[in-house]
Amino acid sequence: MHELTPERIVRLEDDAVVVLDQRRLPTEEVDRRCTSAVEVADAIRTLAVRGAPAIGIAAAYGLALAAGRGEDLDAAYEALAESRPTAVNLRWALDAMREDPSRERAERIHADEVERCRRMGAHALELFPEHARVLTHCNAGGLATGGYGTALGAVRAAFAAGRVVHVWVGETRPLLQGARLTAWELEGLGIPHAVIADGAAASLMAAGEIDLVVTGADRIAANGDTANKIGTYALAVLAAHHGLPLVVVAPTSTLDPSAAGGAEIPIEERDPSEISDRFPAHNPAFDVTPAALVSAVVTERGVHRAPYVETLPHEAAVAR
Amino acid sequence: MHELTPERIVRLEDDAVVVLDQRRLPTEEVDRRCTSAVEVADAIRTLAVRGAPAIGIAAAYGLALAAGRGEDLDAAYEALAESRPTAVNLRWALDAMREDPSRERAERIHADEVERCRRMGAHALELFPEHARVLTHCNAGGLATGGYGTALGAVRAAFAAGRVVHVWVGETRPLLQGARLTAWELEGLGIPHAVIADGAAASLMAAGEIDLVVTGADRIAANGDTANKIGTYALAVLAAHHGLPLVVVAPTSTLDPSAAGGAEIPIEERDPSEISDRFPAHNPAFDVTPAALVSAVVTERGVHRAPYVETLPHEAAVAR
Repeated sequence: MHELTPERIVRLEDDAVVVLDQRRLPTEEVDRRCTSAVEVADAIRTLAVRGAPAIGIAAAYGLALAAGRGEDLDAAYEALAESRPTAVNLRWALDAMREDPSRERAERIHADEVERCRRMGAHALELFPEHARVLTHCNAGGLATGGYGTALGAVRAAFAAGRVVHVWVGETRPLLQGARLTAWELEGLGIPHAVIADGAAASLMAAGEIDLVVTGADRIAANGDTANKIGTYALAVLAAHHGLPLVVVAPTSTLDPSAAGGAEIPIEERDPSEISDRFPAHNPAFDVTPAALVSAVVTERGVHRAPYVETLPHEAAVAR
Repeated sequence: MHELTPERIVRLEDDAVVVLDQRRLPTEEVDRRCTSAVEVADAIRTLAVRGAPAIGIAAAYGLALAAGRGEDLDAAYEALAESRPTAVNLRWALDAMREDPSRERAERIHADEVERCRRMGAHALELFPEHARVLTHCNAGGLATGGYGTALGAVRAAFAAGRVVHVWVGETRPLLQGARLTAWELEGLGIPHAVIADGAAASLMAAGEIDLVVTGADRIAANGDTANKIGTYALAVLAAHHGLPLVVVAPTSTLDPSAAGGAEIPIEERDPSEISDRFPAHNPAFDVTPAALVSAVVTERGVHRAPYVETLPHEAAVAR
C-alpha cells in the first residue's frame, strides 16, 4: 500500500513547489522541483501535475513561491493562467491568490480542496446502490485533487461504507491516466478493480456489469454542461442508452457560471504526437457532456439535479 | 506509396505459408514464414495475420501446406480451427478445404475473397453521401482480408468515385490496429485521414464532423447481430444517438446462420497483459452490436437491411 498524502502530491518548500511527477507513475515515484512560477507552469502544461483541482493548487503554490522570491506577480499570474485552458480551477485559485499571495493562503486552498473532497464523498454516498460496480474514467483521485479525490473520493467513501464491490477503470487514451494513475491509487487503497480499454465499457454495460458511471470534471457551465477528459461524453451517451446513472463529482471551484453552456468552454487541443508519431492525428483533451446526460452533480455543498441552472450558479457565488 | 498486393499479405510457397507480420507494421515490413499448420495457427493466434477473411485464407493455405507435407489433416484442421474462436470465416475456409485440400483450392479461396471485397465496394457506394467524412474502427482493409478490404474497400471505392473526403481512424485499443494498420493503408492509398483516440469519436459526431460509420465484422448472426472488434458496439450506440448510419461490410463467409443471435457468438478473451502489465485488467477482443443498431449489411451480393433474418441466412446458404 502506497501512502498518498496531500503533501506527497504537491507542496511548497522554501525554494520550490514540489510535485510528484504523474507522468512517471506508476513505474517510478519521482518528485519534480519547480523553482519559479514559470517552472510550475511548465509542470502543469506537461502534465507532471494534472487534474483540475490539483493544477489550481499547484498554481496557488506557484504564485506564493513567486511572491516569496520577489518575482513579478503579474507575469507569474499570466504564465500560470495560460498553462492549460480548460480547467477553470486554475484561474479560480490564481484570482484568490492575487488578493493574498502568501504561503498560508495557498496552503489553505490546498487544505480546503481536500476537505471539499471528503464532503463530496459523504454527499455522493446516497447515489451508490448496494454492491455497486462502478465505472470511472481518467483519474479523479487524490493525484488529480491534491488529496482524497472527487470521483475517486466518492468511490473511496462508498467502498468504506461497504457499498462498492468493484471498480472498472477506463484506461483513458491517449495518456492512460486510468490505467496508470487510477489503478495505482485503487491498488493503494485496496479497492478491487480492473482496467479496460475505453471501447470496452459499452459491452460491459450491455452485460449488466456496471451499475453507475462516476467521473470528475474540468469545468462545469451554469447549465450543468460538463467538460471532462475526452471519452466522458461517449460514456454519458452509453450510460443513458443502458439506463445507468452518470454522476459528476466536482468541487465548487470547478463551476464556471460565466459560461452559460458547454459551447463556451474552451477545449484544449494537445499535440497529435500523443496519438500517433507517424500519421496525422486529432487530439482534443476534453469533451463536453450535455447536462441532459448528467444524472447528478455532487459538490462539497450537496447533490444537485437538473435543472442545474437553478442551483449551480448560486453555489459558485456562495463559494467565492 | 506502399504496394499491398494480395500475395504480399499472405501466400503459399513450396515449403511455407508466408504472411506479412502485422504486429510489426507500420514500423517494419517483415515476412513471417510458417512451415507447418501449427505454425500457421500460431501466426493466427498471435495476430501476425489477423482480420476475419485473412485468417480464413491463411488457414486454407495452412491446410494446403499440411496436405502437401503429408501432415495429419485432422490434426492440422483442429490446430487451425482452435487458433481463434470468434471469426467464423476460419471454420468456413477450413471446411471448404477439407473437401479439397489443394493449393489451387486455397488460392481460389484467396482470390474469391478479394473479388468479394471489390463487389462489396461497388454495392456499398450508394450508402456514401457526397463529400462523406467516414469513421472506421480497427482494420478492415487489405491486411484484414487478403487484399482490397471490406469496410476499407468500401471507403476505397467511394474515394475513387469522389465521394469520400476524409477518414477518421479510431486507433482501436489495445492493439492499435486502426492507428498502425488502417492509417498505414490509407497513407498508401493517398486517402486523407486522421487517427483519433477511441473515446474521441463521440465529440466528433456531436460536432457534425462524421457522416457515417463503416466497419467490418468477425461474425454476423442470422438476425444481423454483428460481432466485431471491441469498441464497435460503442460506436453503434453513439451513431444512433447522433442520427448517423452504421454500415457493416462483410463477405458471406462472415455470416453464421447457425447462430440465431449475438448471444450465441463466442467472444474471445485475450491476455490482460495487452491492457496492463501491472494491474488487473479485462480484455474481450470483440463485442456484439445488436442488429437494431446496424443500418445496413453489405455483402458481395448486395445491400441488406432489417429485418436481416429474412435475407442473411439465405445469402449464407447460396454462398456455400
